[in-house]
Amino acid sequence: MEFAAKACPFLRNSTASALRSLSQKPAHTAMASNGLVSMAQQCPVMGKAMTIQARSTMMTGGCPASAGVRHFSASAVQPKPIKSQVLSYASSVSSNDLKASVQHELHKANPAPGAACPFKPAVPATHVAPTSGKTFDYEAVYEEELQKKRQDKSYRFFNNINRLAQQFPRAHTAKIEDEVTVWCSNDYLGMSKHPVVVETMRATLSKYGAGAGGTRNIAGNGALHLELEDELAALHRKPAALVFSSCYVANDATLSTLAQKLPNCVILSDAMNHASMIQGIKHSGAKKMIFRHNDTAHLEELLQTLDPSVPKIIAFETVYSMSGTIGKVEEICRLAKKYGAITFLDEVHAVGMYGAHGAGVAEHLDFADNLNRPVSSPIKTVMDQVDIISGTLGKAFGIVGGYIAGSAAFVDMIRSYAPGFIFTTSLPPAIVAGASASIRYLRNSPHERIGQQTNTRALKAQLAALDIPVVPNPSHIVPVLVGDAEVCKAASDELLRSHNIYVQSINYPTVPRGEERLRITPTPGHNEEMMAHLVNALESVWKRNGLKRTAEWKATGGRAGVVEGAVDPAPIWTESQLSLSAEAVGVGKAHAGQLLEETQTRQASAFQL
Amino acid sequence: MEFAAKACPFLRNSTASALRSLSQKPAHTAMASNGLVSMAQQCPVMGKAMTIQARSTMMTGGCPASAGVRHFSASAVQPKPIKSQVLSYASSVSSNDLKASVQHELHKANPAPGAACPFKPAVPATHVAPTSGKTFDYEAVYEEELQKKRQDKSYRFFNNINRLAQQFPRAHTAKIEDEVTVWCSNDYLGMSKHPVVVETMRATLSKYGAGAGGTRNIAGNGALHLELEDELAALHRKPAALVFSSCYVANDATLSTLAQKLPNCVILSDAMNHASMIQGIKHSGAKKMIFRHNDTAHLEELLQTLDPSVPKIIAFETVYSMSGTIGKVEEICRLAKKYGAITFLDEVHAVGMYGAHGAGVAEHLDFADNLNRPVSSPIKTVMDQVDIISGTLGKAFGIVGGYIAGSAAFVDMIRSYAPGFIFTTSLPPAIVAGASASIRYLRNSPHERIGQQTNTRALKAQLAALDIPVVPNPSHIVPVLVGDAEVCKAASDELLRSHNIYVQSINYPTVPRGEERLRITPTPGHNEEMMAHLVNALESVWKRNGLKRTAEWKATGGRAGVVEGAVDPAPIWTESQLSLSAEAVGVGKAHAGQLLEETQTRQASAFQL
Repeated sequence: MEFAAKACPFLRNSTASALRSLSQKPAHTAMASNGLVSMAQQCPVMGKAMTIQARSTMMTGGCPASAGVRHFSASAVQPKPIKSQVLSYASSVSSNDLKASVQHELHKANPAPGAACPFKPAVPATHVAPTSGKTFDYEAVYEEELQKKRQDKSYRFFNNINRLAQQFPRAHTAKIEDEVTVWCSNDYLGMSKHPVVVETMRATLSKYGAGAGGTRNIAGNGALHLELEDELAALHRKPAALVFSSCYVANDATLSTLAQKLPNCVILSDAMNHASMIQGIKHSGAKKMIFRHNDTAHLEELLQTLDPSVPKIIAFETVYSMSGTIGKVEEICRLAKKYGAITFLDEVHAVGMYGAHGAGVAEHLDFADNLNRPVSSPIKTVMDQVDIISGTLGKAFGIVGGYIAGSAAFVDMIRSYAPGFIFTTSLPPAIVAGASASIRYLRNSPHERIGQQTNTRALKAQLAALDIPVVPNPSHIVPVLVGDAEVCKAASDELLRSHNIYVQSINYPTVPRGEERLRITPTPGHNEEMMAHLVNALESVWKRNGLKRTAEWKATGGRAGVVEGAVDPAPIWTESQLSLSAEAVGVGKAHAGQLLEETQTRQASAFQL
Repeated sequence: MEFAAKACPFLRNSTASALRSLSQKPAHTAMASNGLVSMAQQCPVMGKAMTIQARSTMMTGGCPASAGVRHFSASAVQPKPIKSQVLSYASSVSSNDLKASVQHELHKANPAPGAACPFKPAVPATHVAPTSGKTFDYEAVYEEELQKKRQDKSYRFFNNINRLAQQFPRAHTAKIEDEVTVWCSNDYLGMSKHPVVVETMRATLSKYGAGAGGTRNIAGNGALHLELEDELAALHRKPAALVFSSCYVANDATLSTLAQKLPNCVILSDAMNHASMIQGIKHSGAKKMIFRHNDTAHLEELLQTLDPSVPKIIAFETVYSMSGTIGKVEEICRLAKKYGAITFLDEVHAVGMYGAHGAGVAEHLDFADNLNRPVSSPIKTVMDQVDIISGTLGKAFGIVGGYIAGSAAFVDMIRSYAPGFIFTTSLPPAIVAGASASIRYLRNSPHERIGQQTNTRALKAQLAALDIPVVPNPSHIVPVLVGDAEVCKAASDELLRSHNIYVQSINYPTVPRGEERLRITPTPGHNEEMMAHLVNALESVWKRNGLKRTAEWKATGGRAGVVEGAVDPAPIWTESQLSLSAEAVGVGKAHAGQLLEETQTRQASAFQL
């Protein structure tokens, strides 16, 4: 179980020979001389994983329940195969379980302080510096940790990419004369180069300077910060919003603070949730329950086990970044209401991109209703059912920063208690002014999101025609499955060097091992010629390297949704929505202004002096 | 123990009558019917606090060891005094213990998941919504938490302050025509309005756009990011550096990741460390030991209890933001070497401000040696002894963002493993370009830091002459002691409204209760007239409201260092350093360039494709 080897302080720091020697000791004796398996069964992390493995093996009709355990004990006799056995153990876990495990590795990597862990070893002798004879060799640990990354091909080489505002989506590399087309940025709509944004920021820089000069509480709170929060609240039709350094910080700080404030809180978390949410949940110390990705039946099963009076947060996303799948917002809101839970919805990859005004998938679900709904309208839509929304200013809005939106008291509580909000320099005036300008612009202009969706459809169709495997999804993400870390990086390098195309390879831990991919993100700025060039380049790379086609994935049972699901999900942007004119959205403009005004009035008393 | 009431999930959510009823039950019976004291003794947080209290009472020759416990049990009989007894319990704890407790409240506020806590209550009946009859009332909790803040006067009202680049240090408030002088910004040197910074950022915006467009690994890593990291590495004379969204994130992510990677790591943390370090330590799950603020004898005592082979991190700061005290860098590095520990030094409030080239206090300690020291010099200074430095781009450098600097393998390990670095949008090109420009400029210009220190000396002298109480320190911070949350806020409001001066009141939890202050930060941009106006305004506010003078604090035994220490510490910037010319620093310029070049060569292979 390779990820366990990284997560577990025992496995991580144990040499193969130490493991071997331990595994050769008999099991079921006194604690001190237990064998490897007996110890593993007692570990709060590994023990659980072994139980899951045993169950999943039973369900798939394979080995008996103890199979996982046997893999471990079998490795006791022969020195060499230990590591490979441990690895093969992981690969026998079902795909869903593995996904959940990988996504939640971050949870596991940090056992609770003071939690009794039989795997906690004495300091390995190898880390004690030989020269001093006694003190710890820190550099050796750093080198060893890097060596692990190099060995399993997860070591990251950052490409040097300098996106050129005047030639979007082109960028120069380390050499200024070497230009490439960027096909993997999260500047989905090209707003980072939009004159409205850039000129607002340039003007704000001249007027208010480079930095905010303090925390929000001490000299770092200006009218531009308050205006941005009003914009965000209005966008999501919530009473209040709060801006953070990033959405990583927003998710981490909000989930950890909220769950600490709710007595005995339980967090129900989608197995594919982003690292920032996983960290927030871990940092809260609250009880967590992980439901299988997008599996609302599983979610309901878990909800049924909980007392109705216990506070519960269901944490999930709309567009899952690496697969492009979309969370079941309506169904999850229904379950939340039924079981007395609140919903925490990460719309990071959806804001600016979906909905009549770019408020995200929750708005998109009632597209027509939201298009012209005045504030006073009695109509309630799905987006009104979501309790807490988190979003970013760094993707479709084109800049940097993150936020939450929700009820006034909720937002004020987070503002008042979250250390990650309180004790940090606030975002620069130019950043928040640029973000406000970007949101306002996208609220009233559907062109960019429609252009993006149109290009996504075209690219998916062209790749399908070539049998190049795309993880099927209803969103704007085009994840091209490769399935091997080294090959995926090589493919990315070849695209860059031979075709002047930049698509980063996405490897573990961002995606599970065996699901490595090229994650392509079309923008409205990519023209037909660029797309033809990309498709030809991919075909060339696939052919030259003999990479697996969709048909081949089919033969091996599929992976990451490729072939597994019979029918491709329909795009969430329908044909009629794609034909929407700017005028239609323009009607909503007045209402948005009205909503903003109301929100401002409401907030003024609470936030301003 | 007021902070415990906030930290403890039991006290926090219990009504006075529930506490009363519990305290009336006899102690020392079966677990289920224990009295309040018996329960408290079993709590991992409160139990420890009670032991400390008992010890400190013994040491000060007061009540017997059980005094703290008695306070609790005494409250059992009379309904009303319970809360006040709990509060008086806290105030009888020694000042140092209280400081440590307040600073580390964040640690305690989040009990480890799964830690057995006898205080963990069932959901209080008040939080179950009366209408549904069953489900949890979330809004009631939010309101209740806010009510606590309002009641104890720690609820924060953000002032609306818009700092004007062309009129530094002036700002307009909510009304654009109402201008004030800002005296509490952390834009210590006014670099946020410096033409070198602003113009660099404006040009970068036009060329590379508003946002980075991705994480460092996916489309968000450009030459400007690498250049900034090279600048930072060269500034601190370390092999490598790494940039984060903020220094809050840098401290949190680095400490938590590092301590997780070092088997059985122990972190020794100064009692006054910043919230971000406390969070990082908590999130690591490592064992922590808190040493009294700046007490190296205490630190050594703790080090002596640890096995030499165990990895240890000593985490501390140079300039402590709210008191202006300065960490004992040299002595702590000596102890680290002696006991086989590494040092993690937060130079957030010192970078740009101290040292021959603005590398911070560690550079300042060997000012002359560092002034002209070539890279190849055999001379080693204190700054070379520090293993890890963290700093910010958001205070003296005038923008936003944070960083670490250290050995190449260490930095690469954090780069490869820290979720807070990996899974977030990277800083915009304009931000990193502006930061590089600011660092380069300040490295070669001593004028700004000398001007800042000269103004600090002048202000401290003028306030001393008026007997207005300033927390004594050798740094650039001028903390004016008020000692009451409500009064402190009122004083701040009066300065703003009646004198057009903005100095934020600093209340709990940023400083301990009873040590509320006006934290004044002079800049080189404040002229004589502005300073005279500030001093007169403070005198007027002190007189009109009868605020305590230094002599009065003396009569009551002093607080926060006011009067307690007999002699004011000498400023760390000496007279001769203040007379330094730009030419003298200019000599170091070539060497800095040389160092940068060497660093770039070293890093190129590891970080770039």
